[in-house]
Amino acid sequence: MKKVYAIGAGMTKFGRHPVKTGRELIIEAALETVDSVDRGIDLQKDVEASWIGYFTPELYEHQGQYGPITSDCLGLVPKPAWRTEIACASSSAAILTGFFAVRSGVFDLVLVGGIEKMTTLSTEGVTDALSIAADNIFELPAGITFPGIFALIAQAYFKKYNVTWEDLQAIPIKSHHNGTLNPKAQYQSEVLELGNKFGKKKGISFKDPMDFLKSPLNPTVAYPLRLFDCCPITDGASFLLFASEDVAKKYTDTPIEMAGVGNGTETLSLHDRPEMTSSRATIYASKMAYKMAGVRPKDIDCTEVHDCFSINEVIQIEDLGLVPRGEGIKAAKEGRTSLDGDIPINMDGGLKSKGHPVGATGAGMFCEIWKQLRGEAGKRQIPDAEIGMISNVGGSAASAGVFILRR
Amino acid sequence: MKKVYAIGAGMTKFGRHPVKTGRELIIEAALETVDSVDRGIDLQKDVEASWIGYFTPELYEHQGQYGPITSDCLGLVPKPAWRTEIACASSSAAILTGFFAVRSGVFDLVLVGGIEKMTTLSTEGVTDALSIAADNIFELPAGITFPGIFALIAQAYFKKYNVTWEDLQAIPIKSHHNGTLNPKAQYQSEVLELGNKFGKKKGISFKDPMDFLKSPLNPTVAYPLRLFDCCPITDGASFLLFASEDVAKKYTDTPIEMAGVGNGTETLSLHDRPEMTSSRATIYASKMAYKMAGVRPKDIDCTEVHDCFSINEVIQIEDLGLVPRGEGIKAAKEGRTSLDGDIPINMDGGLKSKGHPVGATGAGMFCEIWKQLRGEAGKRQIPDAEIGMISNVGGSAASAGVFILRR
Repeated sequence: MKKVYAIGAGMTKFGRHPVKTGRELIIEAALETVDSVDRGIDLQKDVEASWIGYFTPELYEHQGQYGPITSDCLGLVPKPAWRTEIACASSSAAILTGFFAVRSGVFDLVLVGGIEKMTTLSTEGVTDALSIAADNIFELPAGITFPGIFALIAQAYFKKYNVTWEDLQAIPIKSHHNGTLNPKAQYQSEVLELGNKFGKKKGISFKDPMDFLKSPLNPTVAYPLRLFDCCPITDGASFLLFASEDVAKKYTDTPIEMAGVGNGTETLSLHDRPEMTSSRATIYASKMAYKMAGVRPKDIDCTEVHDCFSINEVIQIEDLGLVPRGEGIKAAKEGRTSLDGDIPINMDGGLKSKGHPVGATGAGMFCEIWKQLRGEAGKRQIPDAEIGMISNVGGSAASAGVFILRR
Repeated sequence: MKKVYAIGAGMTKFGRHPVKTGRELIIEAALETVDSVDRGIDLQKDVEASWIGYFTPELYEHQGQYGPITSDCLGLVPKPAWRTEIACASSSAAILTGFFAVRSGVFDLVLVGGIEKMTTLSTEGVTDALSIAADNIFELPAGITFPGIFALIAQAYFKKYNVTWEDLQAIPIKSHHNGTLNPKAQYQSEVLELGNKFGKKKGISFKDPMDFLKSPLNPTVAYPLRLFDCCPITDGASFLLFASEDVAKKYTDTPIEMAGVGNGTETLSLHDRPEMTSSRATIYASKMAYKMAGVRPKDIDCTEVHDCFSINEVIQIEDLGLVPRGEGIKAAKEGRTSLDGDIPINMDGGLKSKGHPVGATGAGMFCEIWKQLRGEAGKRQIPDAEIGMISNVGGSAASAGVFILRR
């Protein structure tokens, strides 16, 4: 079993890219990834295979076979390539495929990543496309879509741990603050700043972010979740280069070790789960990753988690064992999960402010941790970060990818 | 690098299953796979992860996340699972993922396979769904769908090698003959038998299959291809169990070694290729597999190739190096690719008569070779088959999976 290192990482700006096709986003992200390799790399000559996560090109672009498309766009034909899919964790599946392929000794250098080109559809179209990550036999016929699913989860959480929506707002406030420090983020503004921008049109100004968040300008999407509890609709792509221990040092003196990887599943339907406020997928994936890496939660210096909705950041950090059950919101309120806290979470702004191009999200989170461990995260750098973690989930966490990286 | 063995294989009958959901097909195929293990297996206890190929559940069932669905249906939650996609070679990607995962030492026992539930849509709907395996920027806007794409390829082939449509009919005649020997095939009748069935309604009877094939009862779909040059629309699922060398012998005395695997890509668009009568994807994948297995084309005892259209069986056996360029049709006419020939091809009836549930096809072909190498292929058994090969492609062979198995 060969050790696997990440020697490059890159991404497009996450946001609305109305005039770029999926293929153009792939090329842009791949070229930035190539540029990130310290001693350079010849993409066409050196890369032996590629894997790409894309949740649903069928619905967004009426296109399949994004594996060969990626291979073709990047000049990699006739080398191996295919697409992986587990909803919002689709690029985690590509990361795992690349990891297995290099660890098995079959390949020494591979490109993995993800993409989603979502703004081709209307908001209603995107809501419908995303809904297929839920159960089409048992959930969708009841009329529920993802904001509703996470609203149910939030209600169950609030009741179980006696917390309120007001408490939860510590999450989006923190995410938007971190987003101001990330030039790749879709929204690079504090919550208050955005609130006042919205308010200006109505002649309203706010002095405190909570005044805005509680106002009708932050409308309820699915009770209790409001607009700022939900991540935006985003286009974007992100790639990583993985190398075996045999070749990694040829490209960089600072390879980042993929110390532990994990994947897991949960029932698609909420009603089949033993718990609504926890996912066995994330728990299983994280245990697998911790075991492989030989580390414990307290050894992790910084973490990116999947905050598709604010409540999910809370559940994620609990499922990962970073805080005790029921204390996820408290940790955010006390600033423990802020950039200067002891458990920094979503340094790049999270899905909430960075954006959530579904298939690219896992690779985008990986990019952030890769930069943090190399000390290249700019104004959002966690000092001396040596071990970082990524936790990406699909749908209502029916699938999960967890990765532990080490400098 | 651990050796990987196939210790089980199973599939549903391929055909129309109007009252079964995708999930039910998965359960049926997985249970047959479990039953195929000589000394038995405890699915929930022993299997550590699963991967499933499904071309487009989004369009056929308005459903994503077939990885977690498979995990849930089979009682494998919270174990790892995701979906793989490269059009008609989607289950080859699942096979490769399972191979890498076991070879890497991360898992010892995994379930891989594929499914497609196509008859949910009308013929027009299926034609549209399949079309997304072609290029939606450069090909589909011209109004072409897959019969048209393979018709262009056939025309190029006929011109290049000076052969005719009449010559090509050796392929469907052979496929339907083999299909009569396969209880899992969608059509288990000779071409002449089917021709006379069609003719009966019109008061016509045929004495020779060519009389039927040339008649208006075998209409042109896309010139020069007629109905019997095209595979049918099919529902089905198929699974395989892969074990590491450490555990394979616990389950069977006759494990089948995955001696060589390969994957490759070609441009999606025909116009971008150096050749229309060949695919670099298949050539690359087969070279990779031959090299890994340490065998040459002449060492292969029996082969399953991807005959989505009759012309593709011809191109496949040439790309694999089983016959010289331009001699694929001649080999069939001379009986060399028949069950009693020296290069038996598509013993199970091929996609033409067995059916082509897109995502399940690669795994289904693997099933046939697994049975042949174990001497369990019944009336279509190739005597003393020791080395067998599978060649599965996606779309117009923009992707390919090649596997060489050894008893």
